[in-house]
Amino acid sequence: MNIPRTSFPRVVIIGGGFAGVALAKKLSKQEVQVVLIDKHNYHTFQPLLYQVSTGGLEPDSIAYPIRKILKDFPNFYFRLASVQEIDTKKNKVKTNIGDLKFDYLVVASGSKTNYFGNSEIEKYSMAMKTIPQSLNLRSLILENFEDALLTSDLNERNALMNFVIVGGGPTGVELAGALAEIKKGILPKDYPDLDTRLAQIHIVQSGDCILKGMSEKASRKAEDFLEKLGVNIWKNVRVTNYDGKTVTTDTDLTFETATLVWAAGVKGATIKGLDSEGFITRGNRILVNEFNQVKGFEHIFAIGDIACMVSEEHPYGFPMMAQPAIQQGSQLGSNLIRIIEEKPMQSFKYTDKGAMATIGRNKAVVDLKKWKFQGVFAWYIWMFVHLFFLIGFRNRMVVFVNWVYNYVRFDREARLIIRPFKRN
Amino acid sequence: MNIPRTSFPRVVIIGGGFAGVALAKKLSKQEVQVVLIDKHNYHTFQPLLYQVSTGGLEPDSIAYPIRKILKDFPNFYFRLASVQEIDTKKNKVKTNIGDLKFDYLVVASGSKTNYFGNSEIEKYSMAMKTIPQSLNLRSLILENFEDALLTSDLNERNALMNFVIVGGGPTGVELAGALAEIKKGILPKDYPDLDTRLAQIHIVQSGDCILKGMSEKASRKAEDFLEKLGVNIWKNVRVTNYDGKTVTTDTDLTFETATLVWAAGVKGATIKGLDSEGFITRGNRILVNEFNQVKGFEHIFAIGDIACMVSEEHPYGFPMMAQPAIQQGSQLGSNLIRIIEEKPMQSFKYTDKGAMATIGRNKAVVDLKKWKFQGVFAWYIWMFVHLFFLIGFRNRMVVFVNWVYNYVRFDREARLIIRPFKRN
Repeated sequence: MNIPRTSFPRVVIIGGGFAGVALAKKLSKQEVQVVLIDKHNYHTFQPLLYQVSTGGLEPDSIAYPIRKILKDFPNFYFRLASVQEIDTKKNKVKTNIGDLKFDYLVVASGSKTNYFGNSEIEKYSMAMKTIPQSLNLRSLILENFEDALLTSDLNERNALMNFVIVGGGPTGVELAGALAEIKKGILPKDYPDLDTRLAQIHIVQSGDCILKGMSEKASRKAEDFLEKLGVNIWKNVRVTNYDGKTVTTDTDLTFETATLVWAAGVKGATIKGLDSEGFITRGNRILVNEFNQVKGFEHIFAIGDIACMVSEEHPYGFPMMAQPAIQQGSQLGSNLIRIIEEKPMQSFKYTDKGAMATIGRNKAVVDLKKWKFQGVFAWYIWMFVHLFFLIGFRNRMVVFVNWVYNYVRFDREARLIIRPFKRN
Repeated sequence: MNIPRTSFPRVVIIGGGFAGVALAKKLSKQEVQVVLIDKHNYHTFQPLLYQVSTGGLEPDSIAYPIRKILKDFPNFYFRLASVQEIDTKKNKVKTNIGDLKFDYLVVASGSKTNYFGNSEIEKYSMAMKTIPQSLNLRSLILENFEDALLTSDLNERNALMNFVIVGGGPTGVELAGALAEIKKGILPKDYPDLDTRLAQIHIVQSGDCILKGMSEKASRKAEDFLEKLGVNIWKNVRVTNYDGKTVTTDTDLTFETATLVWAAGVKGATIKGLDSEGFITRGNRILVNEFNQVKGFEHIFAIGDIACMVSEEHPYGFPMMAQPAIQQGSQLGSNLIRIIEEKPMQSFKYTDKGAMATIGRNKAVVDLKKWKFQGVFAWYIWMFVHLFFLIGFRNRMVVFVNWVYNYVRFDREARLIIRPFKRN
């Protein structure tokens, strides 16, 4: 892979998400050689993908070039590549652009959409885990409205204007809120010749509440906000299939829709070589100890969504979210330095900083450790925190300009079908 | 096509570019029904496409939803469709989503890249007429740098870092300037393990000067600016072929390159039904009279790039640029109102407002009618004019933020390979 060997130990990081980038930053000034491998040349700020899908933000403003993150770090290399296999015997990573030996390996490959084995849903539904996926969803939503104008068949028109979101987690809830705002503020102006009241937004949730990772108060209030926005929430309903037209469930309920968004779950994005039974646990994640070490290895680690660190408080591992990923990346950075300095590692302690979700204009729910609140103030906090965690001054400025504009004008201007989804 | 017939005459506009939008605005408050058809749901600000290709701007900031332009106009309809044929006998437009009768038809279909019949160049070269094309070029440039890291074959690496631009018009010149800035400011930081001095930028120009539509002074100064930036300009050289690896010319000169940008010319984007010999003239454009009427019809018009209006001063028609398009669109709007009011039409008078081009940071050339100037002040004027003509407050703000950021930081952050070009 054309990377010179130096006297420094080589750390190979697979994945430039929250975990991988936090680790890289920690190692930036150390006597190690770091090779970061990702199949995209940019870091994605996943919490805002739903705003890309709904035309509120440009994709470029929530992505950041990985090379730019690393540019001031000496001994850092980035390679745009897909990892195909990890050879734990020869300490080698196999990729589409060649092999690479490592002294330390960190798997930070994240998670991918979990279809629970249903290939029809996988084929016909839309996911929202990457920027290209979010752009596809943006195109599809807009194409559906254009197509709704063309048909005189009312059932077909309804299906085109019907949005079914499976999963009542933060992704599903935030997307539903944004779609409801589009229905209210943009459709009537953009499509005066269409009865936009027909546009229906459904959340289908297998459990008995939405935002189940948050407090009961947040969950109830979010439900309240969504209902006021006209979103239909179906609880204790499990989607069983979708053939591109009809959504079936484990109840009598069915939906006719041209758009099913699958936000019902994720699973670890495992890599061959570390994907056998001995390594993998619940949620397709790699089991790690309190130092993020993979079972049986001193020098192979996993962090972030792909890692499952079991503790008393978290018997199924930490939630697959940005916070644990960032903290594990940072902690592992310190531990790698300790290993090189021949000091003992320190075990990972998770600091739960809380959770939040926004539900359309002026509304959000925030759970902090000691304080849970909902409404307008929560919405400001939500915006501030997301702006703060975005990487890069330009991205923050552009997102800020967009948010102010969207807020003042009740608008979302990025409603562009740049790459058609259906018509291609 | 599901559009109700009213007592108002129906004007069908094909194309939402500068000409079509200017016409639509003029008709906004008149007693006509307007149907605007475009194959994209957005208007593209083409003069800034080169900044999308070089990572300086997000694509979304130079595109604007057509529905939003039309939203306050009563009796306006937009349809996302490709026009397949014009039936001049039955006064009907045939599209992929059905037929549409018209009382007045305005063809504003613009222009497309002219490969002068060379299918190999068409297949292997990159064009920059649309947003998807510009994004493909952005991806390709970045992918080439990534690939240059991987090869130990020096010839291959050179080819990957070699950029050949065919055509020394504004597009070619502005793209070359932006690439030279990337070479200087970004490559050394992003690719410390690559000898970025090898990155070569060539403009190949068949005539004996660049920017031949502008004054001699502007042309000479632009050449000067480009040479100072390290761009190689080859004059009086005509590219004869490109097989994806080697560019051949009508001289001994050949180039090995993985990127050929074809900016050597455009031709009218004609539509079946108006594309026969009687209608078409030089440059594949539709011949129109001084009212933009197509020969033989009282109620069919062509405006903008697709229209060729011959006058003493412009024996080959007006330049295929934004200014004539906007002015013709506006003038035709007035004339359509006059027709309906049963007044005589007024013939089109072109006001040449001048031309300008920018060549990297701090440098531009501006030709006004009475004043021609070059350098930093010209660059400010260039920026001001482009910001002013962008549609939409948000777009202006976002472009402004980006330009200030790029200027202060010597940066271009949209260097993202969101849809890989080579690897797909």
